[in-house]
Amino acid sequence: MLMTDSAMSRSTIPSTDLGERLQAKIDGKTKPPGSLGRLEELAMQIALLQETTEPEIRSPLCLVFAGDHGITEEGVSAFPAEVTYQMVLNFLSGGAAINVFARQNGLHFRVVDAGVKGDFEAHEKLIQSKIAAGTVNFLTGSAMTVAQCDEAIAQGRRIVAGWSAREGTNLLICGEMGIGNTTSAAAVLHALSSLPAEVCVGRGTGVDDEMLQRKLDIVQQAVERHALRGADATSILRSVGGFEIAMMTGAYLEAAERRILILVDGFIATAAALLAVRMQPLVTQAMVFAHKSDEKGHAAMLDLLGASPLLDLGLRLGEGTGAALAYPIVLAAVNFLREMADFASANVSEKTE
Amino acid sequence: MLMTDSAMSRSTIPSTDLGERLQAKIDGKTKPPGSLGRLEELAMQIALLQETTEPEIRSPLCLVFAGDHGITEEGVSAFPAEVTYQMVLNFLSGGAAINVFARQNGLHFRVVDAGVKGDFEAHEKLIQSKIAAGTVNFLTGSAMTVAQCDEAIAQGRRIVAGWSAREGTNLLICGEMGIGNTTSAAAVLHALSSLPAEVCVGRGTGVDDEMLQRKLDIVQQAVERHALRGADATSILRSVGGFEIAMMTGAYLEAAERRILILVDGFIATAAALLAVRMQPLVTQAMVFAHKSDEKGHAAMLDLLGASPLLDLGLRLGEGTGAALAYPIVLAAVNFLREMADFASANVSEKTE
Repeated sequence: MLMTDSAMSRSTIPSTDLGERLQAKIDGKTKPPGSLGRLEELAMQIALLQETTEPEIRSPLCLVFAGDHGITEEGVSAFPAEVTYQMVLNFLSGGAAINVFARQNGLHFRVVDAGVKGDFEAHEKLIQSKIAAGTVNFLTGSAMTVAQCDEAIAQGRRIVAGWSAREGTNLLICGEMGIGNTTSAAAVLHALSSLPAEVCVGRGTGVDDEMLQRKLDIVQQAVERHALRGADATSILRSVGGFEIAMMTGAYLEAAERRILILVDGFIATAAALLAVRMQPLVTQAMVFAHKSDEKGHAAMLDLLGASPLLDLGLRLGEGTGAALAYPIVLAAVNFLREMADFASANVSEKTE
Repeated sequence: MLMTDSAMSRSTIPSTDLGERLQAKIDGKTKPPGSLGRLEELAMQIALLQETTEPEIRSPLCLVFAGDHGITEEGVSAFPAEVTYQMVLNFLSGGAAINVFARQNGLHFRVVDAGVKGDFEAHEKLIQSKIAAGTVNFLTGSAMTVAQCDEAIAQGRRIVAGWSAREGTNLLICGEMGIGNTTSAAAVLHALSSLPAEVCVGRGTGVDDEMLQRKLDIVQQAVERHALRGADATSILRSVGGFEIAMMTGAYLEAAERRILILVDGFIATAAALLAVRMQPLVTQAMVFAHKSDEKGHAAMLDLLGASPLLDLGLRLGEGTGAALAYPIVLAAVNFLREMADFASANVSEKTE
């Protein structure tokens, strides 16, 4: 099911010619060379991904994956576990932060029930993909079975493939909702990296010192019990991950194969990005990192990925909000390349040497 | 002509009651307290400025002030001086970076001829406010006369007052175009601060080492010849400023008096902000700093103003581009406050203590 190197091999050898033509196009725009900074790098990345000098953003999509976590039994969140279910209803009625930002920026929006406790009535904004009613407490067992993990990854892939085929979507934001999922994401980070648990575990929705210490102990215990140090990404995901994290991982893998630009959100979304990149390193070519979250372990994740995020606004909400806020910058990178005049056509004198 | 303390005195004592009601409203939204980071601070600032718990952005306006600089005679720019004129035509035909970003974000857009060499035909996007055909080389005399400086400030005020009255504009971006104006802005910074010229002078549109040294010498000489260390803001502006900088200064002063939110752009725009704040410290209450420019002296300006910019994208283009790129973040701050559901209405459980 995982993509093969050959599936993305074209992007490992980007056309030198295309790269040169793009640089000439960027430098020909009526501005001092390099003066649009990160936007020029973004324009280059997106154009190379789309293999064109005329990149465009089509039907940008924000998927919010929701799932419950057995680990909440251990008391790791400042909010009760039923908030996952309640927030899905809030997403469906349009009242959450991600709804506001998706509307403002013209993003398609869907909520995916990846594994929430409790059932939902059909809704035009809801994609029903429930794997199970929450994961197993990963201190007492594996968070999910092999079959569940595979199915969650496959569902993430199918959803993205469907939007790509039906709507031509070529930009993807994955957000998430799941009380307890910062503990799960911290365990993923602790297992995948050689970093001490103290670097990986943060306050999530705002836990106190006592609960923070409990999260630390749980993350360390879990990684030891499941013998996850040096384990492969799929084992880590299955043992301490969540259904929403697994589905996001699949969504990223599928998006990258289809040359869909991925705008990566915060701590949980980046945990899934780490897993996807561990499974298929070429996925990074499709990724733009939207922001540096205020959640403690996110900086370490970004370092592992060699990522320089676009925004640093002290956000720690999840839901895809950081990515939705960064979206206009990505769109601006595409727009300047498409719409700006060049020195010749605008009769503007170029830099004197 | 300058505003008096009493003109803005209400905002020095923001209603404690309003501040408390706003904080309660922000904390009641369906998100962990504080999790929207800088957006929560922005929402508070804008709502206090507008004196309401229901702030809104109306008819946001981007004005690009253009002016020529006599100092270009000394060879301080990588581009020839006629580029100021050429770029105004580019702005009017919609081909510059700021046109792209203003269109994308739904900003009203006007170019102001504050003092360009050469005349323009009438154009729906052009505001004719030419003070003179460029400033005087400030190594040989004062950049402008007392009367010219006063008139430029007054014109900036009138333009903003007009948009406020006619369109209800309550958000202002000032951009600029003027070959040579990083030298002028660096001289303003050097004169206003006690900072060494080396901290104030940068490469502008991309000068080489030799030209950078020339800029440094010129800035030091100018501040000495005009005896500007410790001088008042108006003297500094008149001696080494530019017509576009003076007009922006007036625009900021008028905007703040009218409680119009000012989204401050990069190096030149922040030089004008420094001057306006020196003339009337309360102006800072209306200011949001959009981005940290790659131009060397900008970091020092932001430090002087105690400003934490929203973006850091390595931009150094001017025109208001950084502010136009930050605009969606400001709009998002207003929108979350207006549109998000609260815990009670959405039936979402609050944080457990």
